Amino acid sequence: MPTIAIYPGSFDPITNGHVDIIQRSLKLFDRVIVAVTQNISKHPFLPVAERILLLSRITEGMEQVRVTSFTGLLVNFARRLEAQVVIRGLRAVSDFEFELQMALTNRNIDPELETVFLMPSGRFIFLSSGLVRELWQLGGPFEKYVPEVVADHLRRMPRVVEGNDPG
Amino acid sequence: MPTIAIYPGSFDPITNGHVDIIQRSLKLFDRVIVAVTQNISKHPFLPVAERILLLSRITEGMEQVRVTSFTGLLVNFARRLEAQVVIRGLRAVSDFEFELQMALTNRNIDPELETVFLMPSGRFIFLSSGLVRELWQLGGPFEKYVPEVVADHLRRMPRVVEGNDPG
Amino acid sequence: MPTIAIYPGSFDPITNGHVDIIQRSLKLFDRVIVAVTQNISKHPFLPVAERILLLSRITEGMEQVRVTSFTGLLVNFARRLEAQVVIRGLRAVSDFEFELQMALTNRNIDPELETVFLMPSGRFIFLSSGLVRELWQLGGPFEKYVPEVVADHLRRMPRVVEGNDPG
Amino acid sequence: MPTIAIYPGSFDPITNGHVDIIQRSLKLFDRVIVAVTQNISKHPFLPVAERILLLSRITEGMEQVRVTSFTGLLVNFARRLEAQVVIRGLRAVSDFEFELQMALTNRNIDPELETVFLMPSGRFIFLSSGLVRELWQLGGPFEKYVPEVVADHLRRMPRVVEGNDPG
Amino acid sequence: MPTIAIYPGSFDPITNGHVDIIQRSLKLFDRVIVAVTQNISKHPFLPVAERILLLSRITEGMEQVRVTSFTGLLVNFARRLEAQVVIRGLRAVSDFEFELQMALTNRNIDPELETVFLMPSGRFIFLSSGLVRELWQLGGPFEKYVPEVVADHLRRMPRVVEGNDPG
Amino acid sequence: MPTIAIYPGSFDPITNGHVDIIQRSLKLFDRVIVAVTQNISKHPFLPVAERILLLSRITEGMEQVRVTSFTGLLVNFARRLEAQVVIRGLRAVSDFEFELQMALTNRNIDPELETVFLMPSGRFIFLSSGLVRELWQLGGPFEKYVPEVVADHLRRMPRVVEGNDPG
Repeated sequence: MPTIAIYPGSFDPITNGHVDIIQRSLKLFDRVIVAVTQNISKHPFLPVAERILLLSRITEGMEQVRVTSFTGLLVNFARRLEAQVVIRGLRAVSDFEFELQMALTNRNIDPELETVFLMPSGRFIFLSSGLVRELWQLGGPFEKYVPEVVADHLRRMPRVVEGNDPG
Repeated sequence: MPTIAIYPGSFDPITNGHVDIIQRSLKLFDRVIVAVTQNISKHPFLPVAERILLLSRITEGMEQVRVTSFTGLLVNFARRLEAQVVIRGLRAVSDFEFELQMALTNRNIDPELETVFLMPSGRFIFLSSGLVRELWQLGGPFEKYVPEVVADHLRRMPRVVEGNDPG
Repeated sequence: MPTIAIYPGSFDPITNGHVDIIQRSLKLFDRVIVAVTQNISKHPFLPVAERILLLSRITEGMEQVRVTSFTGLLVNFARRLEAQVVIRGLRAVSDFEFELQMALTNRNIDPELETVFLMPSGRFIFLSSGLVRELWQLGGPFEKYVPEVVADHLRRMPRVVEGNDPG
Repeated sequence: MPTIAIYPGSFDPITNGHVDIIQRSLKLFDRVIVAVTQNISKHPFLPVAERILLLSRITEGMEQVRVTSFTGLLVNFARRLEAQVVIRGLRAVSDFEFELQMALTNRNIDPELETVFLMPSGRFIFLSSGLVRELWQLGGPFEKYVPEVVADHLRRMPRVVEGNDPG
Repeated sequence: MPTIAIYPGSFDPITNGHVDIIQRSLKLFDRVIVAVTQNISKHPFLPVAERILLLSRITEGMEQVRVTSFTGLLVNFARRLEAQVVIRGLRAVSDFEFELQMALTNRNIDPELETVFLMPSGRFIFLSSGLVRELWQLGGPFEKYVPEVVADHLRRMPRVVEGNDPG
Repeated sequence: MPTIAIYPGSFDPITNGHVDIIQRSLKLFDRVIVAVTQNISKHPFLPVAERILLLSRITEGMEQVRVTSFTGLLVNFARRLEAQVVIRGLRAVSDFEFELQMALTNRNIDPELETVFLMPSGRFIFLSSGLVRELWQLGGPFEKYVPEVVADHLRRMPRVVEGNDPG
């Protein structure tokens, strides 16, 4: 039976660290489903449809990969797709306890779904989507932290104009 | 002189981990005051009045327990009630530094008020109100993490309908 | 060549811990530029202009110090001022990884800009602007954690009236 | 090509947490090699040969598993066995940085060898071989933390007699 | 029924932080048993008998306190003394996970024995017996970190003469 | 007055991470004293004299640097050399609390001596002398983590032969 793994995340935007994790997971699992979470409670940076589009272009040519999005419980989504594995990237200590909590909760709901943690390349240990968004907003060199198609996309996006502080 | 302890928190909603801490504290202190903080700056999940009602039903029959709410400084509230002890549950490393900061600040304001940390049962180490809220919102099995009266209450609450992502 | 150091922060409000770091940095560097970040995405407690005013009064008589504000990338601001050093105060583990991330990112953009971490006095290890804001809001004794001019300023500010909880 | 994974460790002694990780890894990889490290610098609790024997009995009937030991560099050992994956259990924050360091170093030496982190069952989050050794030494109930064959073995081992403290 | 609490530790030597925890626990519990662990596996700095003697002098006049030592399992010792509570001081994050592990293990063995964590005064957050031993060995000002009787005792102890490094 | 900084450490052996910190400190301070601690309680890997020799060769041509060793209290040594600053490298969270403790203790003894933390290059975040020793012992590629003269020296050192495990 082929091993199907889900790599869930907000990917807002996708960074080189995400791409690194996807590539590592291809060596371990037969199929990898990159699944964008539709988190309705936050103001997204990029709409979900654009994130899916960017992910699809980046993973073009990776035949084991499929890009999609989901709402609701990850565990239910995994069951529908007959995935046995959830992939998560582990970077810093501050991620670690949250990840442990999520993995234990998911296991509590579905003991058959195994969470597997991979480590990105050392160069990406401190890279996050939040850092990319902040660099982009401040006019910094975000390009070196994201794939070329993401860099292109972000370069064309209008930056919010900083207002005068009325204080 | 009887020892009076305050167990402050947002209890939004109360979880099995909170109940576990309340039961442990009953063995240590003569009176335990469960005190809901009225935090005006956040959007609550349950209104304070409902949280008090749920806590009252859960602690029904625990004669040492009294449920109430407070605004303003915890230290002032403790002084009015002649409480000598503040109870806090300790779970993860990420809680720890925040709890240390709060305890040191409270001690700075009133050196007589002692903060005592208890540890919930191992099963509840990674349980939080936030996790319950997220499971409830996503249609997950929140019931196993909360007392029965809370589960009943949450089952009857209308869930926010997830809109279509316009992106 | 004189060593010019930037001490960036939101200083909202400035605490005794910030003042402690400024005084320590004066022994190490020829010039210290205290630079208020204009973060447009957050609701500030004090407007940037008031923070600059308060910092100016507190550092009055410290001839090596200059107070200013900046928008955009810290690295670009440092280059314009010909600063070689960024000063950051290190308190708790929870700060630590974020600070490491910022320092590595800044170094990535400008390898010549060195981040130097100083440790505030042990008394201020758990002090933060957020703690001061919370004490102020709740009517607590915020005065002992801030310089006298800040205490004066905060005492004169109207406190937000707590509404009745409709729950 | 079948995926071969190595699960290295001192297993001194093997605990229920180790067995849990082995069982989880069987669902993910075609072959799992449990490899006892021969660490010459420490005083072992059990000799390596006994650890191998105990592991062999515990994994009897698990056809995908092979038990062995190795000296020298893990990366070289993995190459000889044509293993593509190293399995590590992740429990507490205190493990985490050490594990990150080891995984990054191994990757530095052999970029093809991927380290995969699994999480033991929540019941075993705080279980370690050191805890079992201490309980055994102090006459405590170590049996509930180890497989039955390990419990049998430890029950038959002579305990070091505590001498009189000459102070 | 009076609440009996055990404060176990190596107290090698006792520091001002230990005394602070003892004093705090007196306000919470009817009787406090300070119990020196006889750890045979380590080279002690002071013999157990001297540690008991010093603790007895320091707690002279504290009528609720009794000083003793124990071997074997803390849980068994607590049961013999009919103690319901174990007291532990919590200082740094690095202590925290170890303390959680010990408390969960003790609870696993005896669910009736509750571990209660107290926080020493902020001045003692980074103070440990190891620090005192190192300062003493290096000829540093250890006196400000220990009670006067301990300082006296350590001043009279012969310091190990540092040999010439043959390298 | 020139700023004199001490960079104390065991440097056993010196790694590329240490060299990186030395180079960064040269941009900040007028004189940098690299000071090998003579720790009598541990079995050193390299004798102190060899560590001094290697450090001297590595820092040859860095005119601001002086290499030496010291015994006793760092604070006393700093005073004798009229140094105002102690330099420490900060890598991981696990270092952090220990470093904070040492810095606060040193400041307690001599409030004039300031500890300054620098961050090594991201490539060296997880590099330590212990890692180099382990790689060397196991026959791994230690050379990429140390300066060329250290690699030469270690290559010529006889490796301890691994004995047969008698178990």
